[in-house]
Amino acid sequence: MASNSFGEIFRLTSFGESHGEAIGGIIDGCPAGIALDFEAIQNELNRRKPGQSKIVTQRKEPDEVQFLSGIFEGKTTGASIGFIIKNQNQKSHDYSHIKDQYRPSHADYTYSQKYGNRDYRGGGRTSARETANWVVAGAVAKQVISQIQITAYTASVGKIQLGKSYQEVDFSEIENNIVRCPDVEKAEEMIQYIQQIRKEGDTIGGVVECVIQNVPVGLGEPIFNKLHAQLGKAMLGINAVKGFAFGSGFEGTELKGSEHNDLFNADGSTKTNNSGGIQGGISNGMDIFFKVAFKPVATIMQEQETIDKDGNLVKMMGKGRHDPCVVPRAIPIVEAMAAMVLADFYLLEKTNK
Amino acid sequence: MASNSFGEIFRLTSFGESHGEAIGGIIDGCPAGIALDFEAIQNELNRRKPGQSKIVTQRKEPDEVQFLSGIFEGKTTGASIGFIIKNQNQKSHDYSHIKDQYRPSHADYTYSQKYGNRDYRGGGRTSARETANWVVAGAVAKQVISQIQITAYTASVGKIQLGKSYQEVDFSEIENNIVRCPDVEKAEEMIQYIQQIRKEGDTIGGVVECVIQNVPVGLGEPIFNKLHAQLGKAMLGINAVKGFAFGSGFEGTELKGSEHNDLFNADGSTKTNNSGGIQGGISNGMDIFFKVAFKPVATIMQEQETIDKDGNLVKMMGKGRHDPCVVPRAIPIVEAMAAMVLADFYLLEKTNK
Amino acid sequence: MASNSFGEIFRLTSFGESHGEAIGGIIDGCPAGIALDFEAIQNELNRRKPGQSKIVTQRKEPDEVQFLSGIFEGKTTGASIGFIIKNQNQKSHDYSHIKDQYRPSHADYTYSQKYGNRDYRGGGRTSARETANWVVAGAVAKQVISQIQITAYTASVGKIQLGKSYQEVDFSEIENNIVRCPDVEKAEEMIQYIQQIRKEGDTIGGVVECVIQNVPVGLGEPIFNKLHAQLGKAMLGINAVKGFAFGSGFEGTELKGSEHNDLFNADGSTKTNNSGGIQGGISNGMDIFFKVAFKPVATIMQEQETIDKDGNLVKMMGKGRHDPCVVPRAIPIVEAMAAMVLADFYLLEKTNK
Amino acid sequence: MASNSFGEIFRLTSFGESHGEAIGGIIDGCPAGIALDFEAIQNELNRRKPGQSKIVTQRKEPDEVQFLSGIFEGKTTGASIGFIIKNQNQKSHDYSHIKDQYRPSHADYTYSQKYGNRDYRGGGRTSARETANWVVAGAVAKQVISQIQITAYTASVGKIQLGKSYQEVDFSEIENNIVRCPDVEKAEEMIQYIQQIRKEGDTIGGVVECVIQNVPVGLGEPIFNKLHAQLGKAMLGINAVKGFAFGSGFEGTELKGSEHNDLFNADGSTKTNNSGGIQGGISNGMDIFFKVAFKPVATIMQEQETIDKDGNLVKMMGKGRHDPCVVPRAIPIVEAMAAMVLADFYLLEKTNK
Repeated sequence: MASNSFGEIFRLTSFGESHGEAIGGIIDGCPAGIALDFEAIQNELNRRKPGQSKIVTQRKEPDEVQFLSGIFEGKTTGASIGFIIKNQNQKSHDYSHIKDQYRPSHADYTYSQKYGNRDYRGGGRTSARETANWVVAGAVAKQVISQIQITAYTASVGKIQLGKSYQEVDFSEIENNIVRCPDVEKAEEMIQYIQQIRKEGDTIGGVVECVIQNVPVGLGEPIFNKLHAQLGKAMLGINAVKGFAFGSGFEGTELKGSEHNDLFNADGSTKTNNSGGIQGGISNGMDIFFKVAFKPVATIMQEQETIDKDGNLVKMMGKGRHDPCVVPRAIPIVEAMAAMVLADFYLLEKTNK
Repeated sequence: MASNSFGEIFRLTSFGESHGEAIGGIIDGCPAGIALDFEAIQNELNRRKPGQSKIVTQRKEPDEVQFLSGIFEGKTTGASIGFIIKNQNQKSHDYSHIKDQYRPSHADYTYSQKYGNRDYRGGGRTSARETANWVVAGAVAKQVISQIQITAYTASVGKIQLGKSYQEVDFSEIENNIVRCPDVEKAEEMIQYIQQIRKEGDTIGGVVECVIQNVPVGLGEPIFNKLHAQLGKAMLGINAVKGFAFGSGFEGTELKGSEHNDLFNADGSTKTNNSGGIQGGISNGMDIFFKVAFKPVATIMQEQETIDKDGNLVKMMGKGRHDPCVVPRAIPIVEAMAAMVLADFYLLEKTNK
Repeated sequence: MASNSFGEIFRLTSFGESHGEAIGGIIDGCPAGIALDFEAIQNELNRRKPGQSKIVTQRKEPDEVQFLSGIFEGKTTGASIGFIIKNQNQKSHDYSHIKDQYRPSHADYTYSQKYGNRDYRGGGRTSARETANWVVAGAVAKQVISQIQITAYTASVGKIQLGKSYQEVDFSEIENNIVRCPDVEKAEEMIQYIQQIRKEGDTIGGVVECVIQNVPVGLGEPIFNKLHAQLGKAMLGINAVKGFAFGSGFEGTELKGSEHNDLFNADGSTKTNNSGGIQGGISNGMDIFFKVAFKPVATIMQEQETIDKDGNLVKMMGKGRHDPCVVPRAIPIVEAMAAMVLADFYLLEKTNK
Repeated sequence: MASNSFGEIFRLTSFGESHGEAIGGIIDGCPAGIALDFEAIQNELNRRKPGQSKIVTQRKEPDEVQFLSGIFEGKTTGASIGFIIKNQNQKSHDYSHIKDQYRPSHADYTYSQKYGNRDYRGGGRTSARETANWVVAGAVAKQVISQIQITAYTASVGKIQLGKSYQEVDFSEIENNIVRCPDVEKAEEMIQYIQQIRKEGDTIGGVVECVIQNVPVGLGEPIFNKLHAQLGKAMLGINAVKGFAFGSGFEGTELKGSEHNDLFNADGSTKTNNSGGIQGGISNGMDIFFKVAFKPVATIMQEQETIDKDGNLVKMMGKGRHDPCVVPRAIPIVEAMAAMVLADFYLLEKTNK
């Protein structure tokens, strides 16, 4: 089923475990003739990488991407683009505590049952390290659709909410703080809260919001590949995601049609944007807006009861360096997946007429 | 991109407009040798069909499915299963009011821009009539995975909430009332509210919840075809859906890891189910639980301002017979899409070891 | 695996058994805005239909295609195009002779073993009746790529060969005779031979050649979807086909590079065309040329020994009305499959730059 | 269109140019729990590698495959298997002669026209170096279907033919000579001929035959993914292939049905095998047999006239070290592609009942 591939025309296929020699991927279907900005690609990786601030995991990974094909004299050739990211930090850890035990709310149990054979080191294939591959492909996708702007930011950490509609947000504030919340005061509050959570050996969830601007009318494919359905699938594939909503989302269910309908302006734009930029699965030229729910990281530095592979109840204690809150590092991942979806539909749209 | 197809192994491809002669589909990949229960299939269509109660559209469509292939002496043969549902109610309507105008929050504008050429009669391909095809395929899918139970119900209409966790719900109550809410009193409240909304010429949104029981451990495919990601895509493809959340959903973002983690029992089951039956994209044998947000129907019986194809502002008034709230009829659609996802992963799982 | 689908962007999904109520299909990905020539479509079906001449099966089927969706006011809308062809001739035959017996060199045995459950009437899903669906989709595909000319003809029947290179052939002669061989004398010889074969209750094979002209440079996708590889797959999927060769084909294996290489003219055309219009899997603007080998039809009107489902050796005698040679009716099928391949690559090519 | 991917369940996606740092691929869908024989994999690469004998290119490449993921403690985990093969021989060549010129019967012209941007070094993506990736994936596939034997051999070089049916061939002779022809005398004749061709600075074509034994009944998927259609596509994708035929092939077109039909034995096997082991697109348990036509290599060490990118006629002389005949090195490639096809259908077959 090609479950390690994403996209139809612009397609990433990826591989790699947390503690293998390298992770990597192949981008198929990238149009020829694009002069890639490699610094921009590395910059996206830097936004995702561990160790970037005091509120994320202190693991160190340089996360340097190495392109192996598909690019000649700085430009894409239309051939598949192979790349790898070497794992620096994969050696000599002690994984005896998870070798034969299943961490609660991790994929240890389900992978063991499904495949029989499990690479337990650092979570193996289930590690969010995989998302570095996505950020590479997403950074390339952004350059395929360079006229489109994709912007994600932290909307909540636990119960601390940004409390602004996306129209009120000053995007230039996002990268000014380590939690990537575009409000100075709320950002500070979130940072302090995450630090406290870490001290408790605990973790906390949060919500990411994403705005996509300057989208041409007509992207998205009915019936089963609606633009928001594919965006939803992309987001739900990100580790720790529990929900996706676009436009008016769950709040919109409480509204009447007379309140919810987006009336047109003469130029085809709409006075409100409850539709979230998408009508009938197709972009209408307004801002695309969606939100993504992230659960708290399952690995906590507290003792929990769990079971081993023989069904014995055992005590387990988290080890290693983990994120107390994934949201700050999830921002570039959300953007990357969104970029891949948009690039795919952008290319596909060329075949419709 | 095969945007009219859904599923990889068990795959529905569909066609049809609201006012064409027939809609229909082809089910590919249905295993051979299944003795189909045709009454069960028609019963699912009856749950979805218009005119079934006073709170849904009063349009009349018998919605009788006619199978044309892939079945011999009552059993599936492994060949593709073609079917059609004739449109009875497609004649002689007056669509002059939407021929050259774009209904607010409908897909008229986006389809016109994308394709140039639009079948405006009854919404054409964008009509929710298409979902009758899905119900047929979903009813077949249910028989492929007959050991799995899929149950959806109305959890809210506007601000009226069921107010029970799924574990507290008595599933046998669902079909006892026309709004399909498994609580007698809340159901009555919702019904009265929908009737009032209809009188106002307005519409209202709502939330559907779905529980999938008796799922074997191991369904779902990492990395990009996680079980919940595909369920989410399936639900987001349903007309009027604005959001999808599973397990703890958006509420889970406010929890700490120590609160959210689902601790194991000795048999591999978990004490809580914040994971919603899915860990790492793979079913863990617990109940799968998700919720789906439906916006209010865009067609209202009130005058609205809108634009015509030349960008002139015009007044528009809804015509025809429409649902004041889609939620009651969406229940079998949610189940059908879920069944297709589960059947697909069930078959695919056979190839993993 | 969607084995009843063909094509990626322009995709046919089909259904139907020889003796069901109807066969049919869904064309997905046809661009919007094409004003379809329905007469041209029916004309292609007429070229394929049974009973058209004294050298083909005398079964009668009007083979009228009925479009059910995707077309509005004569133009494609971009929505999926559903169609059916009713089976007129499916009633009340006696199939007791094949119900429990396996016809030699048919698919009876393999289908029974694979699926357990077999629709034995008229060959069920394995009947070449299915190719009527392909001709419909191919006729639509031809209109998507209306600048490209696809021409197939009979190159041999048994040992009787046309004996001309495709460059020497007068295409206007093809439809002037019932065997569709563009040489009056050879055609007559083939017709007489087929009539004699029929009298013997036997069947005979043959070769079809196909020329595709006015192809833009650049169609076809390396590495695994080379233009000739997809053409080959398309042709090998046709009932009774045993081989495919393009350009110099098997004869080219005996040549030296210095003899085989196609030298360029200044305008990028080549002096010879051993490449058959394709280099590196991509069209080079020269005529695409290939040949397709058809075995003799397996159903003969002679007694043969075979086995029944219990492994008993039994005598079997062909019944019904069958083609003594499939080649004359295969001409439009070869063209249809080629058209679908070209249309698909034509649309896909739009995404490459 | 994922043109760099092959297979549905067992799927290879590949990348790499002749003169990049590495080529490589990702195998998706390999079942979990297979204890890989790495020596067997390397051995297949050795059969394909350059410099292995006096009748192949004298380029030197160790072609050592390095697996990066999907394998844990020697066994497959069900995760995607990433691998690379470093290019040793890619440095400091002089490609000025092909930078601005199009080699006759190569893909230089078509790639330039299609993509605008071309990696001309060593043929870039069009180099047969890519087939090393296929041999890796094919060697893994062979271990997925370890009960099935796939054997290819040289059947002709130019006009020198093996002259034996596959049933007469002693497979154990194949690897006893460098041309891989299972007849000592014919092999010697072929070797001498290739050496003479090389001295002339010329190249020569040939035919490879392949036999697949011990295939279970039931592999292959009608309608469009017939086993032979997918095998044909696989073979036609190999560089320099011009034709594919199975069973009776083109010769079968001259036979009558009464001569061609394969009569059954009581056990379901057949007395003859004109069907080539496949009926109705599905394996019937008999040996699968097919032949593949390879044209002479286009690069010759003789002066040829050609054009440059501006359309000027220029003289060109081949440089570098090339194969005078690809057939000896194509043997493991044919087997590898066949193995991938069989493994894919073997896994898919599990979903049919």
